[in-house]
Amino acid sequence: MNVEIIVIGDELLIGQVTDTNSSWMARNLNKIGSEVMEITTVRDRRAEIVDAIRQSFSRVDIILMTGGLGPTKDDITKQTLCEYFGGKMVFNAEVQKNNECFFERRGLKMNASTRTQAMVPDCCTVIQNPVGTAPIMWFEKDGKVLVSMPGVPAEMQQAMTEEVIPRLKKRFPDHAAILHRTCLVKDFSESALSEYLTDFEAGLPSSVKLAYLPVPGVIRLRLTARGEDEKALAVQLDGIFSRLENLLGKHIFCHQDATMAEALGLLLTSAGLTIATAESCTGGNIAHEITQIPGSSTYYKGSVVSYANEVKENVLGVDHDTINKYGVVSGEVVGQMANGVQRLLKTDCAIATSGIAGPGGAVPGKPVGTVWIAVSKGDQVMCRKYCFGNSRTANINRFTHTALLQMISLLCE
Amino acid sequence: MNVEIIVIGDELLIGQVTDTNSSWMARNLNKIGSEVMEITTVRDRRAEIVDAIRQSFSRVDIILMTGGLGPTKDDITKQTLCEYFGGKMVFNAEVQKNNECFFERRGLKMNASTRTQAMVPDCCTVIQNPVGTAPIMWFEKDGKVLVSMPGVPAEMQQAMTEEVIPRLKKRFPDHAAILHRTCLVKDFSESALSEYLTDFEAGLPSSVKLAYLPVPGVIRLRLTARGEDEKALAVQLDGIFSRLENLLGKHIFCHQDATMAEALGLLLTSAGLTIATAESCTGGNIAHEITQIPGSSTYYKGSVVSYANEVKENVLGVDHDTINKYGVVSGEVVGQMANGVQRLLKTDCAIATSGIAGPGGAVPGKPVGTVWIAVSKGDQVMCRKYCFGNSRTANINRFTHTALLQMISLLCE
Repeated sequence: MNVEIIVIGDELLIGQVTDTNSSWMARNLNKIGSEVMEITTVRDRRAEIVDAIRQSFSRVDIILMTGGLGPTKDDITKQTLCEYFGGKMVFNAEVQKNNECFFERRGLKMNASTRTQAMVPDCCTVIQNPVGTAPIMWFEKDGKVLVSMPGVPAEMQQAMTEEVIPRLKKRFPDHAAILHRTCLVKDFSESALSEYLTDFEAGLPSSVKLAYLPVPGVIRLRLTARGEDEKALAVQLDGIFSRLENLLGKHIFCHQDATMAEALGLLLTSAGLTIATAESCTGGNIAHEITQIPGSSTYYKGSVVSYANEVKENVLGVDHDTINKYGVVSGEVVGQMANGVQRLLKTDCAIATSGIAGPGGAVPGKPVGTVWIAVSKGDQVMCRKYCFGNSRTANINRFTHTALLQMISLLCE
Repeated sequence: MNVEIIVIGDELLIGQVTDTNSSWMARNLNKIGSEVMEITTVRDRRAEIVDAIRQSFSRVDIILMTGGLGPTKDDITKQTLCEYFGGKMVFNAEVQKNNECFFERRGLKMNASTRTQAMVPDCCTVIQNPVGTAPIMWFEKDGKVLVSMPGVPAEMQQAMTEEVIPRLKKRFPDHAAILHRTCLVKDFSESALSEYLTDFEAGLPSSVKLAYLPVPGVIRLRLTARGEDEKALAVQLDGIFSRLENLLGKHIFCHQDATMAEALGLLLTSAGLTIATAESCTGGNIAHEITQIPGSSTYYKGSVVSYANEVKENVLGVDHDTINKYGVVSGEVVGQMANGVQRLLKTDCAIATSGIAGPGGAVPGKPVGTVWIAVSKGDQVMCRKYCFGNSRTANINRFTHTALLQMISLLCE
């Protein structure tokens, strides 16, 4: 079941909004053995939308579309689809009722624009949107299917999960299976790993592909197999994955696809340890990464984001003279921060960061991008200094990623 | 100067990685008056890449491409471009030297795969990559330009900023200007605002477009003007923007494009106030949002992420009996958390959250998605309860957004 995604919205093509819908959709389509061949992002223009549909339908039978369904003038997807499929707009009482309830629940008043949401093409199956006002539209013609969904991520996700994926599975029952096995590898550059795995890769059957997805300090290795018989495929793939695990041994720190925070959580859970964080330059991002994982409350107790120096001293107990002597961005300070938060929140482990994310804050010998990271486990403390780039956002992410990885390294020792 | 972006990589089409490159590129191309017509995401397959190039070149003269330039077998962009532009692969000593320096700086050893990075098509201008090993390639044929850049965001951003954008401006000097004016509006639904602005919108000249970019509780209103004479355009657009500001008055809480955290920062700065946060269910995400803003250290002192109840009591001083009586997700508890962190970190304002992000943690009467948010300014405390959905990630983001907005509301009173 090959699919293409068309994402609609001027805001995406001027970069005001980043499209996270298509990766979410691709991920969830993959799970049902469906492959996304191409993603096209177009503006709110009739001709461009129609052109994108024609192109996609020349390659695949299923198009999933998001966006351009708001009640305002710049959103023209509904009318465009109505014309493309040769229908006319009609009033749909169910949509109107759904939207009245929606507004009532939120204590809002409906107006003329909202009421236009109940006008829908007569040439599609209308699926109610339980969490918004733009209905989902399922078009079908000459064996080809186009589903139009709202661009608001929560509305799209609900529509996909509850309606679109189950209906697609029913409508296109005999699809090939796609299976993935993923592991996370450290201590290798992408090219060194590729060299190390040359023979392994050469020996793979044509139905199995190996992909390298590097992030700094880590290579995510993904085996993908395609075939008709899902059970046989799983057995074959598990065998190949075991060989990979044997080849890489302790360089694999996580035997499944996971974010760094998830991998850390798995290690902490299996060791029965708790953790806290003390963040200066990362400003809560490590805490955020850790707490995005469901169930993280079993091992994560909390964080002190000590953005101001007085917080480092008064809350974390960092020594005033140490700050004066070594500077706030120093191994001595992050070491004390880690110890301080471990003591304050009564945990087994801790991560602490202090650095210069930029653009301001550089001091002689410590340019923007400098960071000191301490990780601790019981009495062990490991402090390291790193130097990254000039972009604030990239630095915060890189500091966070590196801190999680440094903690993982200590736990793997 | 119309541009299209082609993003290459299997990892994007199975949703393992979200493409943030194209929105960054679009945003920065827009600033130089360049319009992105379409973004196409394709797999690491020769035929699909070539097809995407042909399609794009049928619409525009400039293609910017990212991804597929790694040293491993699954990356085939370089060879594909070499064939497409009719060249052959040659060894480039400068790339080799750049990469040797790159590896040396990082204390890593080069290997055979890394050395393939120095093989480049002889039919392009090679631009050195100062922050990675894949060179940037500038192809030109029949007046059409294609630039291939690495997919690693930091490498692409550096290449765009330092090399590609300056070269594009020089190569295509006479482009039309595009100007934007944006403001953030509260207390309106998208449709109510659209109705309220019907006459204003009808009176806009054809060169000016109004777009509604809603996020929950806020409409981002963007005026876009296109024209030849940038100065005259700016004067015209400023006039129209003033009329919009007069029409909406105090409903506008920010007179420029900004994230919620930026808008909050602008309000705090102009009032000379400081702030702290106490986060339970948002797990550091409010702190992260606030500290992403350069210069936030002037008004932001820090956060206590009190994921465990004992941290709420021991660090923030929340009363044990209050937790027992009202539950940890209650107005009483978040009120005490806000007061506690305001006192502990000695700030003028505070934000506190306690809720159930899910999937676990629901209690009778408090389903997943329930959150209590307190915001405080001096002695004033405003506590409110909200109910959102079932997705953990969406809830964390929604709680964060709502908390920032609630604080903005208190500051605007």
